[in-house]
Amino acid sequence: MKIGFLLYPQVTQLDLTGPAQVFAAAGEAELYFVWKDLAPVRTDAALCIVPNATFESCPLLDLLCVPGGPGQLPLMSDPDVLGWLGRQGQQALWVTSVCSGSLLLGAAGLLKGYRAASHWNYREHLAAFGATADDGRVVRDRNRVTGGGVTAGIDMALEVLARLLGESQAQQVQLQLEYAPQPPFNCGRPELAGEALVAQVRARLSRQVASIAAAR
Amino acid sequence: MKIGFLLYPQVTQLDLTGPAQVFAAAGEAELYFVWKDLAPVRTDAALCIVPNATFESCPLLDLLCVPGGPGQLPLMSDPDVLGWLGRQGQQALWVTSVCSGSLLLGAAGLLKGYRAASHWNYREHLAAFGATADDGRVVRDRNRVTGGGVTAGIDMALEVLARLLGESQAQQVQLQLEYAPQPPFNCGRPELAGEALVAQVRARLSRQVASIAAAR
Repeated sequence: MKIGFLLYPQVTQLDLTGPAQVFAAAGEAELYFVWKDLAPVRTDAALCIVPNATFESCPLLDLLCVPGGPGQLPLMSDPDVLGWLGRQGQQALWVTSVCSGSLLLGAAGLLKGYRAASHWNYREHLAAFGATADDGRVVRDRNRVTGGGVTAGIDMALEVLARLLGESQAQQVQLQLEYAPQPPFNCGRPELAGEALVAQVRARLSRQVASIAAAR
Repeated sequence: MKIGFLLYPQVTQLDLTGPAQVFAAAGEAELYFVWKDLAPVRTDAALCIVPNATFESCPLLDLLCVPGGPGQLPLMSDPDVLGWLGRQGQQALWVTSVCSGSLLLGAAGLLKGYRAASHWNYREHLAAFGATADDGRVVRDRNRVTGGGVTAGIDMALEVLARLLGESQAQQVQLQLEYAPQPPFNCGRPELAGEALVAQVRARLSRQVASIAAAR
């Protein structure tokens, strides 16, 4: 089974590394981290990841996964990126995303007429691509499985894994990764967090996007 | 604030990338990914990460974080690794680990007389290093904060962040990362998973360690 992730500068690395760990732990997939060239890519967490395939060298994928991140803005109109996503997405068995990565799927024409999740702060933009925003943490509509913000990628990948390899395999991976989370606060969704905290995070995200736009 | 992670071949990358995302999102830390040299390091999930510091070039850290992984076995008796961990750990404000990374802290002499967490399958080995095994997901004993298996690193990092920068900052990061987990199954700890599933995962982990030992 061939599983491929779009990897790009200023990707939110946990959008990608969370699902990658889940799929790798199952032990039955070849993982591809795909970008325009093979030079190390700097993520939004200082960490640099090395692509192991380009748009040209990557084989046809069984599962496509598109992570979000502050670096995705220029990609929303990049013909190389959207062309590759479109070609892979049209034939993949499963088309998935994490966080605002669903907007990239949308820009590639892959969510027209589908329900989809996204990071809570960006969900409203799904409509521009003919998708119906859904506030679920993991949203499946036919073969599109989209996750909410960042950490939702782990839940998304486990749900997809259960469909790919069966519930027993997914349960083994969940236990192997000791995934019995205990978040220290009960504020991981805007409706739980309260208005003040939501406003602080919206401001923080705006600054992040602005600083990356300024650096280009 | 300087935060450094030990990075090594066949590390379980989510042990490292989970906390790295939490600390990066707070926006006030320099992150160091430290190994013997600067060549890309292949993790246990095919993904290659590029170190940005060596044991020699890494500055004194405010926070040390040691991830676990199938590649840690040879490091348990590697004087370069244990020497660096010991030097950093003796002066860091916070000494942390994820998963079986606590056994590396133990081998470096940093857990003698401390309570500590570890991955459920490896917790019993803590006693050999003078530590008291604790089955908590995040265990704090003075300035040692150790997490359970793999995904516990996210919880650990949020708890440490709350102490470093205050609860409001940690709550903002939790909301930014949309950390309101919904695991698909209720089997993320052995006492929840049942004997058959635990046996399957123990066998899987043994095979993983054996195949890495054979490849050396």
